[in-house]
Amino acid sequence: MTGTMMYQQLNVGAIIDHASKFHGDTEVVSVETTGGVRRSNWSEVARNARRLASALNKLGVQQGERVATIAWNNVRHLEIYFGVASGGMVCHTINPRLFPEQLVYIINHAEDQVLFLDKTFLPVAAKLGQMLKTVKAVVLMGPRDEEAAAMVDGLLFYDELLETGDPDYVWPDIEETAPASLCYTSGTTGNPKGVQYTHRSISLHALAIALPDALNLSGRDSVLPVVPMFHVSAWGIPYVAAVVGAKLVLPGPGMDGASLVNLIEAEEVTISLGVPTIWLGLLAEMSARGTNLPTMRRTVVGGSAMPPSMFNEFREKHGIEMIHAWGMTETSPLGTANQPKAKHAELDDDAMNALRMGQGRPPFGVDLRVVDDEGNTLANDGETQGMLQIKGHWIVDTYFGHDGNTLSEDGWFDTGDVATIDPDGYMVIRDRSKDIIKSGGEWISTVELENIAIGHPAIANAAAIAARHPKWDERPVIVAQKTGQITDDELIAFYDGKIAKWQMPDAVVFVEELPLGATGKVLKNKLREEFGDMLMP
Amino acid sequence: MTGTMMYQQLNVGAIIDHASKFHGDTEVVSVETTGGVRRSNWSEVARNARRLASALNKLGVQQGERVATIAWNNVRHLEIYFGVASGGMVCHTINPRLFPEQLVYIINHAEDQVLFLDKTFLPVAAKLGQMLKTVKAVVLMGPRDEEAAAMVDGLLFYDELLETGDPDYVWPDIEETAPASLCYTSGTTGNPKGVQYTHRSISLHALAIALPDALNLSGRDSVLPVVPMFHVSAWGIPYVAAVVGAKLVLPGPGMDGASLVNLIEAEEVTISLGVPTIWLGLLAEMSARGTNLPTMRRTVVGGSAMPPSMFNEFREKHGIEMIHAWGMTETSPLGTANQPKAKHAELDDDAMNALRMGQGRPPFGVDLRVVDDEGNTLANDGETQGMLQIKGHWIVDTYFGHDGNTLSEDGWFDTGDVATIDPDGYMVIRDRSKDIIKSGGEWISTVELENIAIGHPAIANAAAIAARHPKWDERPVIVAQKTGQITDDELIAFYDGKIAKWQMPDAVVFVEELPLGATGKVLKNKLREEFGDMLMP
Repeated sequence: MTGTMMYQQLNVGAIIDHASKFHGDTEVVSVETTGGVRRSNWSEVARNARRLASALNKLGVQQGERVATIAWNNVRHLEIYFGVASGGMVCHTINPRLFPEQLVYIINHAEDQVLFLDKTFLPVAAKLGQMLKTVKAVVLMGPRDEEAAAMVDGLLFYDELLETGDPDYVWPDIEETAPASLCYTSGTTGNPKGVQYTHRSISLHALAIALPDALNLSGRDSVLPVVPMFHVSAWGIPYVAAVVGAKLVLPGPGMDGASLVNLIEAEEVTISLGVPTIWLGLLAEMSARGTNLPTMRRTVVGGSAMPPSMFNEFREKHGIEMIHAWGMTETSPLGTANQPKAKHAELDDDAMNALRMGQGRPPFGVDLRVVDDEGNTLANDGETQGMLQIKGHWIVDTYFGHDGNTLSEDGWFDTGDVATIDPDGYMVIRDRSKDIIKSGGEWISTVELENIAIGHPAIANAAAIAARHPKWDERPVIVAQKTGQITDDELIAFYDGKIAKWQMPDAVVFVEELPLGATGKVLKNKLREEFGDMLMP
Repeated sequence: MTGTMMYQQLNVGAIIDHASKFHGDTEVVSVETTGGVRRSNWSEVARNARRLASALNKLGVQQGERVATIAWNNVRHLEIYFGVASGGMVCHTINPRLFPEQLVYIINHAEDQVLFLDKTFLPVAAKLGQMLKTVKAVVLMGPRDEEAAAMVDGLLFYDELLETGDPDYVWPDIEETAPASLCYTSGTTGNPKGVQYTHRSISLHALAIALPDALNLSGRDSVLPVVPMFHVSAWGIPYVAAVVGAKLVLPGPGMDGASLVNLIEAEEVTISLGVPTIWLGLLAEMSARGTNLPTMRRTVVGGSAMPPSMFNEFREKHGIEMIHAWGMTETSPLGTANQPKAKHAELDDDAMNALRMGQGRPPFGVDLRVVDDEGNTLANDGETQGMLQIKGHWIVDTYFGHDGNTLSEDGWFDTGDVATIDPDGYMVIRDRSKDIIKSGGEWISTVELENIAIGHPAIANAAAIAARHPKWDERPVIVAQKTGQITDDELIAFYDGKIAKWQMPDAVVFVEELPLGATGKVLKNKLREEFGDMLMP
């Protein structure tokens, strides 16, 4: 064909090659599972990734087969990310917080060939050993360790395995639509489902999250993903850091406030990413030490609803911008990021805070809509709540090994969230669609009710649930954990003036502890089982 | 297939749809060819683009056929960009500064079906009319105009043509590898050659130039491309502005300093792009008015060598960061952009200035190398000069309608430049490979010699050329235009201490005027014809 542009595959090998060639001496710093800090760089990561791919070939792993990890955020994990995918295999990252039966299920379902483990998780492997049907090698991510060798028959050691690999190994040609990594969702019901990311989806996602209106990442950044590499690829940070040539700081198992403050100061971290609970720990430590972390300019928060107080504390007390982002395993994860537009420059503080508490707007490459129960598209007016659906280059099409229909008839993925979208594209999650309270034809957001309850000084944590009601179908009930003295009437009174009368909770139940799932989310289905009929006669 | 991500085409229609849906009320401001300012927005641009595509279909233009423009930067031109490409046709942008015989050649070579013209260029069309073999309609970009109608038989009018189109026209499905636009190079020898950009190359290029380490574009920017839309798509700005939802300010024919200052102030421009001569005009006007253009935070310069003084004047006098970028028609154009890395934070001013005078480093998606005359890859050591070759998603593969081999055997495009690349990937153009002076086995950069000459207050412009030499093969000769009193000996003495002895020019020739090509570059081949033998016995 004459008259065209070069066609190259968008793949993970091209990402690590770029980092190695143009950012070779930019550091990758890693807190080791066994303690201590290891300093590497993009050139060494690339070289080890080639050796690893070569070594896995020698172990007999075939193109397209899965290689699993149960590991913290560290440099060996990073080398596995790049080596496995660039070598044409699929890097299956496993969440160690899953229940043992779920671990067995997903390892067998993915037909993992090799299992890489940090030492922390060796006991898990020792226990599961017999039940894993396809795993031909278990590799400890570290040097030879006799104590470990005694625990698992035939255990291999990462550092020795690397020695068997060729640092000049040449990446195979890989189509951009080929799979590169795999992550299972931790659903609260049913078996976990796998999302298999492609080389193309990873590459386009990396470009999108680097944009100024998402994370704004450059070769001047030092980026600390506190979000785990075992969950949605640490939000894609390992890939995008290589794309832009940023310094990458991997915190290992130490995700407490003190460890993070130390690491941020030592490695001059400019941006960090995590879920709200991580930031609560960090803020407490910053207060205790009286530090503002002067190199850190922004944090990214997502994964669950964020208390407004946290946002203000970062911004006003420490001068750190907090970027609210939203996504899920099925969306790679970036669906939206919250950065203002030029038109917002004139908003007053309250209006700007209100805007920034939402989940933000989609980057190019992602499309969003809200639909009603019949699938009709609703208005983007910032008011109309509907089921949030999403479409784009890095959104799941089909689950791994599932034939069922994942998408709507016209090709959209239903997120399971209820949201509004305003005319500027800013989306606000109102609730999970299975949690939202449908009262007399109106929808009441449990998230909003929970945020108010958590704002009360005597409440440690709270969940709002839909309780069946003879007249209104459903009415809100608050299930709460106290830290101080408070009665149910006092808590209900606390809502007064903060929400409309018809949204007020009908009842409050105090419990010792809220039931949590593997990723720390409250299991509202359990609460509904227990308290869902309490308003019925 | 189970276990994969959604696959969508990266195409221009998706870009304008994104802008329309999520940035619909963000402004597109345009200086009209006939004077006055027109205010539009992304939603209206998208609607008009649909109407235009529909109207062109009705005129009988087929998928894949070319539709040409000879026009300034204005909103109708923008609508043509998006309507033609999203409608499956190819937008052929023509440089009006080409000689008439070149215009005829490229219009016939591209087999343009429709020709859109700004009123400025109507006389050209009137003159060429008979010689154009494929053009079935000529359209004036404006409302009905009887004076214009009298000049060209059957002239159509853009605003009337739009009325015939359907604003709800649905974009056809377009493969991302399909062509979207076409631009001919203005080579100094031979016929111009066409580079046909694909939907994919345009999309990936747009993502790359938005990155923080390139132009750093967001929905908070107001971007003014002074680089023309008839030359390499105004460096891709129309597309990237839509991708990130930036305000787009199109200057029309007014590219003089006064018009630009007015526009930048009125439209709160934050970033502008242009060639060095544009910035000389702007700086002079800023000085005359005593304004710093407070909204403007950065300018992007490329297209030809930049005098260091300009860089410092923007930065130190006005607080405007100047980003040096490099590219060419064949590279879409972004090959490199000059932004520092974290490691450069500690450089002193001189070292930082030296770094920033170079052309910068490639974004992810582009690979660079320097090779010797035999095609061997040379060291990226910042010292070794070689032919600069480039590879990537938005680099030409084959010229439009040319069967000849465009690339090296191993798939690289030779830029025709001589450059060095340092270990961090920073590239410095030393010369054009056909211009560089090969003296006794050493290479002498004509660009460096010219920059020194231009730095002399009595010199208006200068070109260094290779003159044949009986002993050294080639030696430098300076051909210069004076503005004041200076002798050839004085100019040669001015080089003393600025370069090595063996690089000193052998002779100086003063001329009334240097010969310039269509894009304002000195035609050194003409000078070599005239003065190339002056050192021979």
